[in-house]
Amino acid sequence: MENEVIYEEREEIGIITLNRPEKRNALSKSMLSQLADILHKIADERRVKVAIIKGAGKCFSSGHDLKEVLNSDLHDAEETFENIKRVMIAIREAPQPVIAQVHGYALAAGCQLVAACDLAVASEETKFALSGINVGLFCFTPTVFVSRNISAKRAFEMAFTGEMITAQEALEWGLVNKVVPKEKLEEETMALAKKLARHSLSVLETGKKFFYRQLDLDWENALEYATKTIILWSQTEEVKKGIMAFLEKK
Amino acid sequence: MENEVIYEEREEIGIITLNRPEKRNALSKSMLSQLADILHKIADERRVKVAIIKGAGKCFSSGHDLKEVLNSDLHDAEETFENIKRVMIAIREAPQPVIAQVHGYALAAGCQLVAACDLAVASEETKFALSGINVGLFCFTPTVFVSRNISAKRAFEMAFTGEMITAQEALEWGLVNKVVPKEKLEEETMALAKKLARHSLSVLETGKKFFYRQLDLDWENALEYATKTIILWSQTEEVKKGIMAFLEKK
Amino acid sequence: MENEVIYEEREEIGIITLNRPEKRNALSKSMLSQLADILHKIADERRVKVAIIKGAGKCFSSGHDLKEVLNSDLHDAEETFENIKRVMIAIREAPQPVIAQVHGYALAAGCQLVAACDLAVASEETKFALSGINVGLFCFTPTVFVSRNISAKRAFEMAFTGEMITAQEALEWGLVNKVVPKEKLEEETMALAKKLARHSLSVLETGKKFFYRQLDLDWENALEYATKTIILWSQTEEVKKGIMAFLEKK
Repeated sequence: MENEVIYEEREEIGIITLNRPEKRNALSKSMLSQLADILHKIADERRVKVAIIKGAGKCFSSGHDLKEVLNSDLHDAEETFENIKRVMIAIREAPQPVIAQVHGYALAAGCQLVAACDLAVASEETKFALSGINVGLFCFTPTVFVSRNISAKRAFEMAFTGEMITAQEALEWGLVNKVVPKEKLEEETMALAKKLARHSLSVLETGKKFFYRQLDLDWENALEYATKTIILWSQTEEVKKGIMAFLEKK
Repeated sequence: MENEVIYEEREEIGIITLNRPEKRNALSKSMLSQLADILHKIADERRVKVAIIKGAGKCFSSGHDLKEVLNSDLHDAEETFENIKRVMIAIREAPQPVIAQVHGYALAAGCQLVAACDLAVASEETKFALSGINVGLFCFTPTVFVSRNISAKRAFEMAFTGEMITAQEALEWGLVNKVVPKEKLEEETMALAKKLARHSLSVLETGKKFFYRQLDLDWENALEYATKTIILWSQTEEVKKGIMAFLEKK
Repeated sequence: MENEVIYEEREEIGIITLNRPEKRNALSKSMLSQLADILHKIADERRVKVAIIKGAGKCFSSGHDLKEVLNSDLHDAEETFENIKRVMIAIREAPQPVIAQVHGYALAAGCQLVAACDLAVASEETKFALSGINVGLFCFTPTVFVSRNISAKRAFEMAFTGEMITAQEALEWGLVNKVVPKEKLEEETMALAKKLARHSLSVLETGKKFFYRQLDLDWENALEYATKTIILWSQTEEVKKGIMAFLEKK
């Protein structure tokens, strides 16, 4: 069971692989627990600057493990859904930006995972859906994250029809950042990760924390928060060195 | 006056027709009152699973009845605008998803009605505008709903220029879900309604209530709300049966 | 130093020109102070109905003056960033809609200025970026305004990669309202300004104040606020006259 999620590091990038390919990476209770643990480990160790989440086999993830949900009692259900909540919070609170590398399918809780990541790169054949409604299991948690990425009517349509959208639609609607040919997916995702990894973990962490906190404030409080932060930040060694290097290059 | 709004049911779909074609379905005080009443009736009777709002004649709706507004005193104005507020709340609080079937024009309060519906299908010649500013009657209430569908600068432009946008722009901006040829408008809207009507009213109602409540929460409270809901929901008979049927099909 | 910002009026339109072309209109502390003062003057005098902000020379603005930031101590930094905060608030609180007329580059705080304006017209070669991260100076304040214009993942990408996007992307994402050939930029921006200037300052001011206040409310409070406003507004002389003129034309 230990390798339902595989973790490896390449240079300063942590790569997390959902590894139940024979189950289309269905997010079992134990897999979600391992995924949360790995994200916590990455956050605590601070060895990498960026994390990538991808799926082994033919797809990113088909969502929750429906057989497991079917056989769950209330206690099991609590564990499963508290585990995926832990994953969501771990992604959001990690100092590192987290990139979803998506191929094949990202359905229901799999689509939620893409939406919850900070950035997403998809291969062009990928299909996305909030498919839970098709089995009566309305995509409550996926809707939270998808509706914070795309417009209300589109999120409503996905949640209530359960139908698939293409990678191209996901790109146009803002659910993913980039769509690339399948054979370039890994290379392009790594290129994006490396672009971010040029920066210090300190700036990535401060920026990421700032990004989501200010999003939930009204504009005046967000502006106040930003102003206070930039005043202090502008006086750091890191910024002074960064500006100096930039001005010298010019 | 009773048939300023017509209501009929086809299978499990309630069809509401704005019926002042000679007035381009201008939303008079009495028409708005009838529309709110019908929406309340649909909500109370729970006979249909989806509602459609459409317009008789050449367009969906040209907005408020300007002659009536012109001749209104403060008391009349209170009634008119409280009536449309009741319509807005009735759409939002109905257990059924409400689909706007839009053709011709959807102007000012007519555009508001489209924006307030959960989903919208438009025929390709349709024009949309927040045209109130052209008569000095800034589209206050329409702006509330349009700015919750499309990006801030686009909503600002619509509200301050009063200019028309095309169905194609409405689609690209997220104001409508689908644009179809005029002769297919009814068929396509019904097809979307039927897709939703496959599900139980219970899941549609719970999903819809959840959708809008979580949208106005910050992400952490939305996540907590979703987690609590899915834990309980996953233990219902409906879900267990739905998953079982799905797993058997595979 | 006095002409780091130039102000002129044409008919009822106030034109503000950032005027440090040899510094790519880098937003120095003194320039920001002058810009805030001019915006306050426009707001107080109420002589114009619309304001335009544009840049002299080859670009709109390259952002903060990095040499100045490099040489700043905490006190200087407070002044600089409090000044740009004053500009942001002045744009938001001006009774007049403010249009950004953008060409060349709009980088970091320059991109923030575009995002904070109510409307924006860009020439087709313009590039936009949240480029601060490239010197370690994360675009905190620009992110506040950009993330209120475009979808979360796109704003995150801009803030964390620092890469440029094209005018076409800015248009598709909702950061600007219009993209035009460079030789038509001034003409098209003026045409948009004149379209707004047909209306009374009273309706422009009330509409603008309403627009941003309701955006930060939940939908029910926004609806209540709109309803109360439209009831009173519908009884004004201006509206009665506007409707009468409109009905007579028909």
